[in-house]
Amino acid sequence: MITPLARRMLAEALGTAFLLATVVGSGIMAAQLAGGNIALALLGNALATAAMLVVLITILGPVSGAQLNPAVSLVMAIERRLSWSAVLPYIAAQLAGAILGVWAAHAMFDLPILQFSTTVRTGAGQWLGEAIATFGLVLTILGCTAQAPKSTPFAVGLYILAAYWFTSSTSFANPAVTIARALSDTFAGIAPADAPAFIASQIVGALLGLAAGRLLWAGVT
Amino acid sequence: MITPLARRMLAEALGTAFLLATVVGSGIMAAQLAGGNIALALLGNALATAAMLVVLITILGPVSGAQLNPAVSLVMAIERRLSWSAVLPYIAAQLAGAILGVWAAHAMFDLPILQFSTTVRTGAGQWLGEAIATFGLVLTILGCTAQAPKSTPFAVGLYILAAYWFTSSTSFANPAVTIARALSDTFAGIAPADAPAFIASQIVGALLGLAAGRLLWAGVT
Amino acid sequence: MITPLARRMLAEALGTAFLLATVVGSGIMAAQLAGGNIALALLGNALATAAMLVVLITILGPVSGAQLNPAVSLVMAIERRLSWSAVLPYIAAQLAGAILGVWAAHAMFDLPILQFSTTVRTGAGQWLGEAIATFGLVLTILGCTAQAPKSTPFAVGLYILAAYWFTSSTSFANPAVTIARALSDTFAGIAPADAPAFIASQIVGALLGLAAGRLLWAGVT
Amino acid sequence: MITPLARRMLAEALGTAFLLATVVGSGIMAAQLAGGNIALALLGNALATAAMLVVLITILGPVSGAQLNPAVSLVMAIERRLSWSAVLPYIAAQLAGAILGVWAAHAMFDLPILQFSTTVRTGAGQWLGEAIATFGLVLTILGCTAQAPKSTPFAVGLYILAAYWFTSSTSFANPAVTIARALSDTFAGIAPADAPAFIASQIVGALLGLAAGRLLWAGVT
Repeated sequence: MITPLARRMLAEALGTAFLLATVVGSGIMAAQLAGGNIALALLGNALATAAMLVVLITILGPVSGAQLNPAVSLVMAIERRLSWSAVLPYIAAQLAGAILGVWAAHAMFDLPILQFSTTVRTGAGQWLGEAIATFGLVLTILGCTAQAPKSTPFAVGLYILAAYWFTSSTSFANPAVTIARALSDTFAGIAPADAPAFIASQIVGALLGLAAGRLLWAGVT
Repeated sequence: MITPLARRMLAEALGTAFLLATVVGSGIMAAQLAGGNIALALLGNALATAAMLVVLITILGPVSGAQLNPAVSLVMAIERRLSWSAVLPYIAAQLAGAILGVWAAHAMFDLPILQFSTTVRTGAGQWLGEAIATFGLVLTILGCTAQAPKSTPFAVGLYILAAYWFTSSTSFANPAVTIARALSDTFAGIAPADAPAFIASQIVGALLGLAAGRLLWAGVT
Repeated sequence: MITPLARRMLAEALGTAFLLATVVGSGIMAAQLAGGNIALALLGNALATAAMLVVLITILGPVSGAQLNPAVSLVMAIERRLSWSAVLPYIAAQLAGAILGVWAAHAMFDLPILQFSTTVRTGAGQWLGEAIATFGLVLTILGCTAQAPKSTPFAVGLYILAAYWFTSSTSFANPAVTIARALSDTFAGIAPADAPAFIASQIVGALLGLAAGRLLWAGVT
Repeated sequence: MITPLARRMLAEALGTAFLLATVVGSGIMAAQLAGGNIALALLGNALATAAMLVVLITILGPVSGAQLNPAVSLVMAIERRLSWSAVLPYIAAQLAGAILGVWAAHAMFDLPILQFSTTVRTGAGQWLGEAIATFGLVLTILGCTAQAPKSTPFAVGLYILAAYWFTSSTSFANPAVTIARALSDTFAGIAPADAPAFIASQIVGALLGLAAGRLLWAGVT
């Protein structure tokens, strides 16, 4: 018999799996077809990811919150919108789903399942990009929660669509996504050695986003 | 005098005809204009298909459910949201509409009406792609039905936009669409010999989606 | 002092002017920048047109209906949703606005104001395209009016986005647009001699759309 | 302790910073990746900007109005929707945020922080473009305020998406944006000497938009 927490973990795992299958799968498809034009590949990759996020948050939001992101779960726990006892199960489900999603993408495109990325993504500019990207993502989520909960799915999808283009790092903004993308030597990959600095930047950005959100919407919720 | 079931069959036929005219017609247009860049052709094809799906489900959903898809009609019958006696009429209307839509696209572009595709689409990766695509489509529909019925048109359109890009098979996810696309030797075609394995994969994916949907939203609807 | 009908005519004229400035202006911009890739030019043209339609119908719909299209005004008069005495004033405002919009686009891009298109658009396939395009547009409008009035702006915008791609004629679907585009020898133009057949096809499609709409949504409105 | 006006200024500054980081950042990214195809670069730039506007107006609108634009603040003050005493603080916050956003984009992409644009943007056609762009933006905002307040975020985002393509100037339509973009010698830049005429055109367009809006929606609000 399925329990409430198990059902929420299933939602987080399945949602993160579809998110990563989309990020990595559409990256492979776009890079294969774009004939070397990276802007066109990024466009297909960004539109697919944004569209999938809108869908996942619409259908899974009422079940688990559709956080799909350890940095968001951390912020929600600090905000007392997620019980601390659920944080580790959520993150475990997100990580498991994310890795499963990457492997599903590899299987669909007849690539080796187990890979490690060799794409270098590093430097102060990109770390700033990750911090800003996650700062804005947390602001988007907190702002919608406070002011327009029904707009959350579209706002998060559109935010990520913009962030793919305006940040130098193409906006990972999610530790589970970062770890899973280290396991794919394709368009969306990141070398494992570069992942920790991305994740640290994301957590700094998320906490600053929480601080700014409290200034902007204090007393509203 | 038009009867209720006849009106619903008209809605399914007309909707599936517009869906296929869009899939095949925009594929022809995009391939003719894209100068060999397949990513650009897929972008036009995917945006047009997604946009049309939002429209069709908005205007026809209240009439017939705007299922436009035998695999969805099967799931809805199992879920007791469509009477079993309506399943065959629905599927007949969907197939007739789908073929009419393909032929309309051919006529608009001054191509021979009757064609058979020669595009090979086969292999375990693509079959997995079709199963995952249909699994996610059914989850999207069941999740919206349970949690956010008014979001169904946008969610389905955006899901297919993403699925065109993240699955290796470009996400047919629909037996009527598969059969009709076998009748078009253009961008969107699939060789008739490859259609049965696609359809089998779609039905497996749809049934697994139904099982997952019951775990996620049991007791909600 | 402005009268109600004058205010509605202002809305129709201003709306059609912005619609044509967008169709023609974005066509010029896209063709100038796309480096000969017509699919890319059509993409910019289609996205801009669809986005503008959503905006115009949102803000002008409550004033005048934001029909912006003589074929739609005709259908609305037959449906008794527009008084017959307002039909000619509406069409006059739409035509005046459409021509003004084309000229504004020319002025913005430093082109001669008065032009006549030399782009041949003719043949049975394109006429069928115009009939199908207008048939679907009328169905979209009637379906939204009957089932989901608040969805009209998005549905019409998305329908036209799809129709730019899936019809061989790129979906003019509007006699005022057709006449005005005859006055622009740019990407969006149509040779004046080819306009009458387009307009005739549009009216046939609109009337068939009305007939189909009555079958689908009879007794709903 | 944060006061109401300070909170609103924070919202305007942060919102304008994200807007400019998106405009300039996505311009840099798109130009770097597009391989010289300017239409493709404009597409990425326009989609990112429009998506970000929808997000910012959704989350910041209830705090400060999310005007993010001195011309809009001026119109709102004339319309008595913003107190005159708040106009200068709003504009100061918008300008400070805009410049900060440009600098953040430069830092993310490892470019020199302080730059001045050398991109010539001048001539009667582009000035007309800016006037029309701002005229339409003000109409969009006033129309949504009068008829469909909840549609404001999407309508403004979609309007700007269209205006990037249909105006010869690519639609700055915002004095704070114009000044800030003079500080970036990248895709989105404008030479400082060309900024004043753009700003003058924007103010003329905004006031004409206010006049037209009063004709269209008088007595509605």
